[in-house]
Amino acid sequence: MPGNSFGNTFRITTFGESHGPAIGVVIDGCPPGLFLDLDFVQNELDRRRPGQSAIVTQRQEGDKVEVLSGVFEGKTTGMPIALLIRNEDAKSKDYSHIADKYRPSHADFTYQMKYGLRDYRGGGRSSARETASRVAAGAVAKMVLQKIGVKVNAWVSRVGDIALEKAWEELDFSQIEATPVRCPDLPIAERMEALIRDVRKDGDTIGGIVSCVVENCPVGLGEPVFDRLHADLGKAMLSINACKGFEYGSGFAGVSMRGSEHNDPFFNENGQILTRTNHSGGIQGGISNGMPIYFNVAFKPVATIVASQESVNEAGESVQVEGRGRHDPCVLPRAVPIVEAMAALVIVDHYLKDWRIGGLKD
Amino acid sequence: MPGNSFGNTFRITTFGESHGPAIGVVIDGCPPGLFLDLDFVQNELDRRRPGQSAIVTQRQEGDKVEVLSGVFEGKTTGMPIALLIRNEDAKSKDYSHIADKYRPSHADFTYQMKYGLRDYRGGGRSSARETASRVAAGAVAKMVLQKIGVKVNAWVSRVGDIALEKAWEELDFSQIEATPVRCPDLPIAERMEALIRDVRKDGDTIGGIVSCVVENCPVGLGEPVFDRLHADLGKAMLSINACKGFEYGSGFAGVSMRGSEHNDPFFNENGQILTRTNHSGGIQGGISNGMPIYFNVAFKPVATIVASQESVNEAGESVQVEGRGRHDPCVLPRAVPIVEAMAALVIVDHYLKDWRIGGLKD
Amino acid sequence: MPGNSFGNTFRITTFGESHGPAIGVVIDGCPPGLFLDLDFVQNELDRRRPGQSAIVTQRQEGDKVEVLSGVFEGKTTGMPIALLIRNEDAKSKDYSHIADKYRPSHADFTYQMKYGLRDYRGGGRSSARETASRVAAGAVAKMVLQKIGVKVNAWVSRVGDIALEKAWEELDFSQIEATPVRCPDLPIAERMEALIRDVRKDGDTIGGIVSCVVENCPVGLGEPVFDRLHADLGKAMLSINACKGFEYGSGFAGVSMRGSEHNDPFFNENGQILTRTNHSGGIQGGISNGMPIYFNVAFKPVATIVASQESVNEAGESVQVEGRGRHDPCVLPRAVPIVEAMAALVIVDHYLKDWRIGGLKD
Amino acid sequence: MPGNSFGNTFRITTFGESHGPAIGVVIDGCPPGLFLDLDFVQNELDRRRPGQSAIVTQRQEGDKVEVLSGVFEGKTTGMPIALLIRNEDAKSKDYSHIADKYRPSHADFTYQMKYGLRDYRGGGRSSARETASRVAAGAVAKMVLQKIGVKVNAWVSRVGDIALEKAWEELDFSQIEATPVRCPDLPIAERMEALIRDVRKDGDTIGGIVSCVVENCPVGLGEPVFDRLHADLGKAMLSINACKGFEYGSGFAGVSMRGSEHNDPFFNENGQILTRTNHSGGIQGGISNGMPIYFNVAFKPVATIVASQESVNEAGESVQVEGRGRHDPCVLPRAVPIVEAMAALVIVDHYLKDWRIGGLKD
Repeated sequence: MPGNSFGNTFRITTFGESHGPAIGVVIDGCPPGLFLDLDFVQNELDRRRPGQSAIVTQRQEGDKVEVLSGVFEGKTTGMPIALLIRNEDAKSKDYSHIADKYRPSHADFTYQMKYGLRDYRGGGRSSARETASRVAAGAVAKMVLQKIGVKVNAWVSRVGDIALEKAWEELDFSQIEATPVRCPDLPIAERMEALIRDVRKDGDTIGGIVSCVVENCPVGLGEPVFDRLHADLGKAMLSINACKGFEYGSGFAGVSMRGSEHNDPFFNENGQILTRTNHSGGIQGGISNGMPIYFNVAFKPVATIVASQESVNEAGESVQVEGRGRHDPCVLPRAVPIVEAMAALVIVDHYLKDWRIGGLKD
Repeated sequence: MPGNSFGNTFRITTFGESHGPAIGVVIDGCPPGLFLDLDFVQNELDRRRPGQSAIVTQRQEGDKVEVLSGVFEGKTTGMPIALLIRNEDAKSKDYSHIADKYRPSHADFTYQMKYGLRDYRGGGRSSARETASRVAAGAVAKMVLQKIGVKVNAWVSRVGDIALEKAWEELDFSQIEATPVRCPDLPIAERMEALIRDVRKDGDTIGGIVSCVVENCPVGLGEPVFDRLHADLGKAMLSINACKGFEYGSGFAGVSMRGSEHNDPFFNENGQILTRTNHSGGIQGGISNGMPIYFNVAFKPVATIVASQESVNEAGESVQVEGRGRHDPCVLPRAVPIVEAMAALVIVDHYLKDWRIGGLKD
Repeated sequence: MPGNSFGNTFRITTFGESHGPAIGVVIDGCPPGLFLDLDFVQNELDRRRPGQSAIVTQRQEGDKVEVLSGVFEGKTTGMPIALLIRNEDAKSKDYSHIADKYRPSHADFTYQMKYGLRDYRGGGRSSARETASRVAAGAVAKMVLQKIGVKVNAWVSRVGDIALEKAWEELDFSQIEATPVRCPDLPIAERMEALIRDVRKDGDTIGGIVSCVVENCPVGLGEPVFDRLHADLGKAMLSINACKGFEYGSGFAGVSMRGSEHNDPFFNENGQILTRTNHSGGIQGGISNGMPIYFNVAFKPVATIVASQESVNEAGESVQVEGRGRHDPCVLPRAVPIVEAMAALVIVDHYLKDWRIGGLKD
Repeated sequence: MPGNSFGNTFRITTFGESHGPAIGVVIDGCPPGLFLDLDFVQNELDRRRPGQSAIVTQRQEGDKVEVLSGVFEGKTTGMPIALLIRNEDAKSKDYSHIADKYRPSHADFTYQMKYGLRDYRGGGRSSARETASRVAAGAVAKMVLQKIGVKVNAWVSRVGDIALEKAWEELDFSQIEATPVRCPDLPIAERMEALIRDVRKDGDTIGGIVSCVVENCPVGLGEPVFDRLHADLGKAMLSINACKGFEYGSGFAGVSMRGSEHNDPFFNENGQILTRTNHSGGIQGGISNGMPIYFNVAFKPVATIVASQESVNEAGESVQVEGRGRHDPCVLPRAVPIVEAMAALVIVDHYLKDWRIGGLKD
């Protein structure tokens, strides 16, 4: 079974390669009657777009989104919504030198083995360009979330060894977009940007962590035992290019805690059941309990570097691979809207599949 | 869409609650012609079974598996294989005292909110008892893997602050089953057991990490862009009770590396393409490249502790919850066969859905 | 992808062969809080059971259903419901004479080709015994339908050339169970029974048609463009053993009508929109419009006859196949509860997946 | 779960409304390495296109297909293939007069009830325009079938009361495209065309039957018990606009036959197992047996007629609905490529999901 669709009830199917005619997505299952704010979709795409600043890739693209279907007089009809983004500024000649070579830690080798051939230009479908489709779909999902009051915020919490150590409750989310690096703590953001610039000068790359919080998630989302809410969030994040890890709530750090410290006692606040602590990360037994859902997504340093590297070609011969083309020294700032988009897609999918819920209230 | 099925081509559907008549699983899509070694299945179940030693829970159960369908003259027929395990030794009266209370960090509250009612005995379906079904199915998946030469090994690499720091290549997997704690480094295993016994005496619980390696995975498994092999592995692990995190390859540690250090150069060894290092963890672009796949699964300290805890009941009143019944001070050793089972299920599912592959060779 | 599951939101997975230890079904997605009337389930199974009268097969089985999971204090919990039916009275030695022969128009040949081996006893999984699992699941679906006021009735409208020509609105459904042949027109029923007895004496078989009506279906069920309500009904019926055709509304007869005759004008009756005629069969654009849904299901004469037949064996040699064992001269009366079960499963699945609907009202 | 995707392993997702910017389809799972013959795709679309002759609708459209992704240097890469068809010649003002009216036997009422709003122009998504997307995808499926030698041919076998009575084996398929009505028997074709012209003059519509044969289907396709090959064919056909019935093999006529007449004896012809007769229609136990698969698809007279009709509007008021715009007096000739497309999609999906089969041979 091919894997280009995500979700069951709010289901998206993406298509498109880095240097093909276009990329896009079909969204099936969007509730009808929603005003589709195309400016908002475009804005989300612009957040992801390369060339926004000196610290990210220099590929310039308008990423202009066009709606092909599913909308009538500005509103969603319940019919599939197809969004199209034409590829511009794709310099194919940048990649001819590696047409038959396997770049280390890229998908060249595995795609060649699996499919027998590959569109080598810019990584073809394995390129992060594909994530623009997800961000477009995620924008529509965010519009559904807006209707039910759910808020999703992501930010860069780590670049290399520079980590934002504060608890997320202490952060000012309005500062996320204040800097290109998307870290809401401005001093830390500055240090991150300096590091990225150094890495860029070295023609190298560096990794980091994107953190995310979902607030006001309705109680009861998640489908045990396999489609637990956090399991779907994890799959969603791990499907993003360069992602190497996912943890939620207390995560990996929590393994050292005792149950007596880790447990979150319940209490009643004006009829609403809350927990005094939230090591659970808002999900218990795979189902949301109403407390904020927070998680971290780890990204490796992306594989496209400038330095020459040892490798082999399709004939199995030893070759040197030179980096050319354009690339990101650090993908983290651009990953922020992607993480938010995937989170929105998962929450909306689970919201719509929960059968207690009928219809979108205005 | 309900979430009790896992996999597409090798699909399992589990059923059963902790204190219901039975638990079990239906496996659909198992290739025909496989000799179903029931002793092997039973053995895997025994590995997971509580009461094996003084460090784990004292609930005694035979966990005797019965085959109801899908096998003829000892061989799989391609028809659905139903495996049944009757529940014995389920002390329901142990749980009556919490029938209407929400135990902290359990699924009591979320299940009640989502479903409107719940089988409170032993956690009902949210209990880890459900994982016996997965282990039974995973045993069948392992038999398929045996046919194609894939090996899956998991072990406990961390309990609380006690961590096994060696690279997995240096471990002797034959020592995993040498101790109840399933850590193949015997001195570390001893320290872990001591810690667990202390925690048990305190009536408390502790978490840890299970590590796993898949060797000889065929090249080309994984379905980009959403059903990436590691994304499905992540979802599989995160669906296990008490799991809080998943990382593969360089994982969270890799975020601090430079691309120039992190990349895995290719080289040709007698016609086989390998990588000199393996930060990729055997998966590139979401597709296996033939190198070993290794990952870590983080487990929180389970929520069932002896100490009295603050909580609320279904009426929203403040109550104290006493721990009774039987529980694990540390679920990690029992999680080892569950992690292996889930890994086997994912690999087999991807193997069978890869359309380059036709038929099982003997 | 294996095909032993049916439905998306109310999903069933069946298992079991004719002469295996047991057959059964796992129902995932049943709404919680429903009182599970086991007597009703047993009653539905008894309707399907062979040996009820002289005109059907003489295999005696209790078909006693056991609930293994998903029910607590008599109510569904939202967890998977596993129903088990042990096989009794299975005379395996009746089939040894055809172990390596391909009976004409049975599934022996195709199963052998596809799977490489087969459980030849009684047709294994291809036997109509498998439909007992569906009837059990359909009984649970009917309980959901009862809650929302939907009524499903099926009956035998044709055996061989003997056809019940009346419009369904003129029939008295309370007479369906009045005779073993399940035709509510008693004179026609008598003629049908006489024909079946004659066919039985000849050691032969005869086919027929089961008709079905769904009344009070809520408006708006169906998921265009591919999961149209009637398309799912058609697939459901065609998946029943011996089914060769499906038509709904005006069906095959309607092809000769003019649009001006065939169209169903709308009118307003006390605020409810109805149609004056109902050639549409209650479904327009693949979505229910509230009018009764009626359809016909055609069944061929089953392939197990007594007379000797020309055939080949697994070695490709010419052989004679003798009929032995027990069989139905006419499967139609037993098909009635199966058709109702499949209809109930489809309607409930579409009801639950329609996102306008939240929660079951008492 | 929304219903705009079809297939599991060769999965298509269609989008687009009659008067929206464009229609199209995303094909996921197409095997890599296939030369994508765009001329062939265009040709299939032209077969479906209105305005080909005086007997069908007069809407002129180029239906020019554009490939957006999934193809590199002329070959499929295994990545999703997106095909786009811009809508031209869509006269939206033709439909303003029925914006708030429910046309009898159209999907206006049901869509309004289900979604709360609808794109009324030309029926929106419920329009048969959507089938162009299927034909485009079906063309790609046909290319896969060509590689494995499977042939699919459909033709009009009945219009109103004029029926082609010959067995399909006696027909000359090369004559199907010889006339606009696509009936390969030229005298019958003439009578059909005459009838259609009369019906058109009356501003009315008439129905009919499309018959189809699949030859050289590999043995063993079909996934019992629910995804039987003929059940998926039935669902596929029933999902086509105006389809009211499906039968295969002996179909509805076979119900009157005795088993002794109906059974198809096996025999060995040079090592190949064939059946002497083929009432089974090439499928036994839901799995193909290698004999030709033949089936009939019944289409009602389409609902768009010129005469004024009684109906109601959204306010529930009694209104008259006038027919305007363009329409087909008989949809049957245009349904032929759609039936072929759906058949190709089903066969390819089952071929690819059969795990005995690995890789496409040249």
